[in-house]
Amino acid sequence: MHVRDTESTRQGRDCLEKFSVGETASLTRVVTAQDVEAFARVSGDDNPVHLDEAYAASTRFKKRIAHGMLTASYISALLGSRFPGRGTIYLKQELAFLRPVYLGDTIEVRATV
Amino acid sequence: MHVRDTESTRQGRDCLEKFSVGETASLTRVVTAQDVEAFARVSGDDNPVHLDEAYAASTRFKKRIAHGMLTASYISALLGSRFPGRGTIYLKQELAFLRPVYLGDTIEVRATV
Repeated sequence: MHVRDTESTRQGRDCLEKFSVGETASLTRVVTAQDVEAFARVSGDDNPVHLDEAYAASTRFKKRIAHGMLTASYISALLGSRFPGRGTIYLKQELAFLRPVYLGDTIEVRATV
Repeated sequence: MHVRDTESTRQGRDCLEKFSVGETASLTRVVTAQDVEAFARVSGDDNPVHLDEAYAASTRFKKRIAHGMLTASYISALLGSRFPGRGTIYLKQELAFLRPVYLGDTIEVRATV
């Protein structure tokens, strides 16, 4: 898995007062085949559109796609380990999977106060 | 990872007409330390509340908890690989993380038409 911080801010804050409106952070990842295969194992989601190139070729996507929840987990990574970071527990998430994510695609997740 | 089907129905359906209102399916899993550690690697979410027993003991949770997105991924597993199964692509998800999930807890996810 490739992780690159594109922006980050002070970590480990545990009080809302330490944040400013408009403050933002992001992280960028490249989705690898290994990530998709590991996610299939840990989630149990072995949908062949994620794992089987021949099957995926027969779908509208034409190629294997990442699990939506894998890309969603990057949001968790940003919030839980970087911004706000340590101590963050998040309680709610709305997700809309708008476009397919292919292996090798670069995903940026961004959080803004 | 432990997976046990508690209910399942015909798989591989690709037309809405093949489903009946009220039809339901579920799967049950036990969340293991190995799952949480693998999820941390694949997501990049290394929040110590998930990985560090001593740190977790200092939090309101008292023990390590699973990533919310790990348990959410079981929904993806149910939809994508069992019910409706093969061919299912899901587009939207609202999540509310109501209670902590501890290592060793059993999680049941259920889908109802």
